Amino acid sequence: ILPRCSLRGRWAPLRWLTGSCGEASAPGLGNPAGVPGPVAPGPRGLHAAPRRLQELTSERYRVRRLPFSRLAPGDVAFFERLMPGRVVTDPEELKPFNVDWLKSVQGCSKLVLKPQTTAEVSQVLRYCYEKNLAVNPQGGNTGLVGGSVPVFDEIILSTVLMDRVISFDKVSGILVCQAGCILEKLNEYVEEQGFVMPLDLGAKGSCHIGGNVATNAGGLRLLRYGSLRGTVLGLEVVLADGSALDCLTSLRKDNTGYDLKQLFIGSEGTLGVITAVSILCPQKPKAVNLAFLGCQSFPKVLETFTTGRAMLGEILSAYEFMDEKCMELVEKHLKLSNPVKGSPFYLLIETSGSNSTHDEEKLNDFLEQAMTSGLVTDGTVATDDKKIKASVWFTCVSLVPQALWSLRERITEALTHDGYVYKYDISLPVGKLYELVADTRARLGQSAKNVVGYGHLGDGNLHLNITAESYSHDLLAAIEPFVYEWTARHKGSISAEHGLGFKKKQFIEYSKAKEAVLLMQRFKAMLDPKGILNPYKMLPSSS
Amino acid sequence: ILPRCSLRGRWAPLRWLTGSCGEASAPGLGNPAGVPGPVAPGPRGLHAAPRRLQELTSERYRVRRLPFSRLAPGDVAFFERLMPGRVVTDPEELKPFNVDWLKSVQGCSKLVLKPQTTAEVSQVLRYCYEKNLAVNPQGGNTGLVGGSVPVFDEIILSTVLMDRVISFDKVSGILVCQAGCILEKLNEYVEEQGFVMPLDLGAKGSCHIGGNVATNAGGLRLLRYGSLRGTVLGLEVVLADGSALDCLTSLRKDNTGYDLKQLFIGSEGTLGVITAVSILCPQKPKAVNLAFLGCQSFPKVLETFTTGRAMLGEILSAYEFMDEKCMELVEKHLKLSNPVKGSPFYLLIETSGSNSTHDEEKLNDFLEQAMTSGLVTDGTVATDDKKIKASVWFTCVSLVPQALWSLRERITEALTHDGYVYKYDISLPVGKLYELVADTRARLGQSAKNVVGYGHLGDGNLHLNITAESYSHDLLAAIEPFVYEWTARHKGSISAEHGLGFKKKQFIEYSKAKEAVLLMQRFKAMLDPKGILNPYKMLPSSS
Repeated sequence: ILPRCSLRGRWAPLRWLTGSCGEASAPGLGNPAGVPGPVAPGPRGLHAAPRRLQELTSERYRVRRLPFSRLAPGDVAFFERLMPGRVVTDPEELKPFNVDWLKSVQGCSKLVLKPQTTAEVSQVLRYCYEKNLAVNPQGGNTGLVGGSVPVFDEIILSTVLMDRVISFDKVSGILVCQAGCILEKLNEYVEEQGFVMPLDLGAKGSCHIGGNVATNAGGLRLLRYGSLRGTVLGLEVVLADGSALDCLTSLRKDNTGYDLKQLFIGSEGTLGVITAVSILCPQKPKAVNLAFLGCQSFPKVLETFTTGRAMLGEILSAYEFMDEKCMELVEKHLKLSNPVKGSPFYLLIETSGSNSTHDEEKLNDFLEQAMTSGLVTDGTVATDDKKIKASVWFTCVSLVPQALWSLRERITEALTHDGYVYKYDISLPVGKLYELVADTRARLGQSAKNVVGYGHLGDGNLHLNITAESYSHDLLAAIEPFVYEWTARHKGSISAEHGLGFKKKQFIEYSKAKEAVLLMQRFKAMLDPKGILNPYKMLPSSS
Repeated sequence: ILPRCSLRGRWAPLRWLTGSCGEASAPGLGNPAGVPGPVAPGPRGLHAAPRRLQELTSERYRVRRLPFSRLAPGDVAFFERLMPGRVVTDPEELKPFNVDWLKSVQGCSKLVLKPQTTAEVSQVLRYCYEKNLAVNPQGGNTGLVGGSVPVFDEIILSTVLMDRVISFDKVSGILVCQAGCILEKLNEYVEEQGFVMPLDLGAKGSCHIGGNVATNAGGLRLLRYGSLRGTVLGLEVVLADGSALDCLTSLRKDNTGYDLKQLFIGSEGTLGVITAVSILCPQKPKAVNLAFLGCQSFPKVLETFTTGRAMLGEILSAYEFMDEKCMELVEKHLKLSNPVKGSPFYLLIETSGSNSTHDEEKLNDFLEQAMTSGLVTDGTVATDDKKIKASVWFTCVSLVPQALWSLRERITEALTHDGYVYKYDISLPVGKLYELVADTRARLGQSAKNVVGYGHLGDGNLHLNITAESYSHDLLAAIEPFVYEWTARHKGSISAEHGLGFKKKQFIEYSKAKEAVLLMQRFKAMLDPKGILNPYKMLPSSS
């Protein structure tokens, strides 16, 4: 017997942390149908005043359930026959699939399917397409823009059991695997054979490679190994109607026709379900060094970058920055210890290379230059073999590389402990990167608890985060569209690497020309004419 | 007054080096309409027996002029008003635009347009779209698959006057320029500011960056800087109906919607005309070293590659190979001197890095290892400052890097002096690369003059070339589909970097699944419903 979703009317039971699915939908305010509207962002663990939240939501996230079919017992029976034991309908088991990692959005799906093969994904989609059932593809559910959870009652198609490595070529470093492989496990697998995955990100312990590709994940190694658009060599994708598209080649070069796979990279599950990935893995570097440095101003952060890029050249593999507020939060909420104190900015610089002596020499030369010219005031280094001579200039603290990386990687986590978080992921010309943080801080004044900036400086990617004790409509109105307008004015992107998902889809025109958006909608209509794949995501509602 | 094309009937006057446009079309043989067919590949400077050539062509390249409008005097008058003095109708001036670089295909266009701005390209296409006039976009006309010249009387839209640099950011290395900029000139421009273009190829002196992007050119630096899919950051494109699509962003990361520009990269002018490009330029390496080595077998070539990749790591910037036949032809036809004799295989290995001392140390270590373990038997090096110690092992010959590069880059030219050339550009798993050459050589025996193999070994890209005194149908039948079937059997690509253009479009299914080709045709139909953009190219005729 199928648990029934207590949807009232056609409006979304999408939840912002305010209760369980479909139960608390209050009467809609300000939406034309007068039916329950989606609930707006709420503070962590608190119920904000429902009236204000819903006013906000109906204003910002007016989303209407599209006329997809509703799940019927016969549908579940069909899936049970197709993949016995891999069909989830139990309300408790469904919960984690319906909520995003940030616990900021919640859907109301009554069904999770766990296919193991591409053929099963095909059969599922063919059925759903025929029956007009909406589908939400889900990988590790680690996205930050609400793209990986259903908005209403979409069927969740999880890649969790598609975790098989298909092949690995030790000469070329080309890995072919199913979409549900966890990034960290893949990295361990290829490391054993002398390679690394070309991407790395904080969520590596849970994110799926298929989801990484579907969201065109950036992360910490992009500076060195480039984007997935270059390293992904092939994809297998199942289209909305269930037909499988085999573009799973393992060649570095192939100019035979349009590169169809590119359309699916970064399409956030709206054009097809990625079932397998072929990806080029670089050789595992023989030497990795990390330096954690303090800088007295953002101009010095930039000058240090220019100097480092020139002196470290081809071995520079990460150039991350964070402001002192980030470090305060990491120290306060996670009890991590910052080995370098008293700087308004901190840098995490990584080198990866094939010759440890050469790399250490380059790093030493760079650090000496940075210290003697006053670009950097203090720092510490972590190297594989401790030969680095940084102690000449630095208060040397013995830290393993992972401890230094944690200071950067766990900022997101620290922020969630600080209150309600407004998250922005912005691309800007690198010289403008911190101006946005400063301007936002000045604009918000006391109304925000903390305004912090950090990110992948080497890629021109800023993570701007604003925390407050609780969610506030007024604060949001002070941030948006201010941040988007500021970004558009400086020809930036309102989503550098997180994607648009559910939360940001209405803002796409701050970064893309209207004609481009129209063309995207035509691609969507062509590949998914019924719109069953991850509806309500990425592209703005055409209404 | 418009020169009139002497087309007879609806069949192509496309020429294979057998005379001037439209004049020599002999009665078609074996084509259903009984009208002149396109003329088949001919020997260099010779007229092959027309009967055999045409039998071949009607068999292989059966192409029918689609029902586009024919150019009328009013059309020319319109374009003269739009861009006075930049409209070419003089038959002599038209000639070089109608023939490809290899002089292997020839069209019959009566009109070349030379817009200077995107607005002009828009107006041209809007007009042509309304009037149903077919258009052949043309950059430097250096393509090798007949993609850049008209097949019939398509209007040639040349980017030759769109050669303006729009901006260059010295911090990020991001160059924005018009599509008609010549690659070599761009490289000189950015080199002055401490950067290099991320691609380099033999045709750099004439090819346009827009054409490079439209064909997804690979070339000599791909091993180090990756493909254009990663380095091209933005494009401006004019669609078939004349609407301009502005995706000309200059950001390393931008995940707002589908990455539309990817569809135009490598679309060979069939989906839109690229008018401007934003591209990320890497820093100019401070040290460049070249080694030219002799190897006694292909397995040793491969082992040398594995060793070199490990020992040279991040500074390895090119790994090219060529067989002894290539060197014979370069010596014989171009009088270049091969500094290393008596090896069945030769390698050209380049390093580029930020520290000359480190790079030379790495190269020395690698060369020592390669020599002492017998992987390499002889060689020479060219370095910036002559400090390299290769003379310990090598017969050292003083050669500037460009002289060594010429041995590799001028093979194509040497081949054209050897007779009629059958050209293949194949991607294969690197271990299989030379097997195809050996198998082809064994298969063809005495019927071929020379069977040579060279290419970008580091990218798994083989250039297989077969020469003969003159064009022969029987020889072609012995080569094709053998080469394509062999490639498909080993999961390779029948076009690694040259594209499909006119000559190879019918063979796409050796490398792409039928459903993928159908989807490509749907994209084409959506973006160019009248099919006016570079017709007869890239995708197989649907009939």
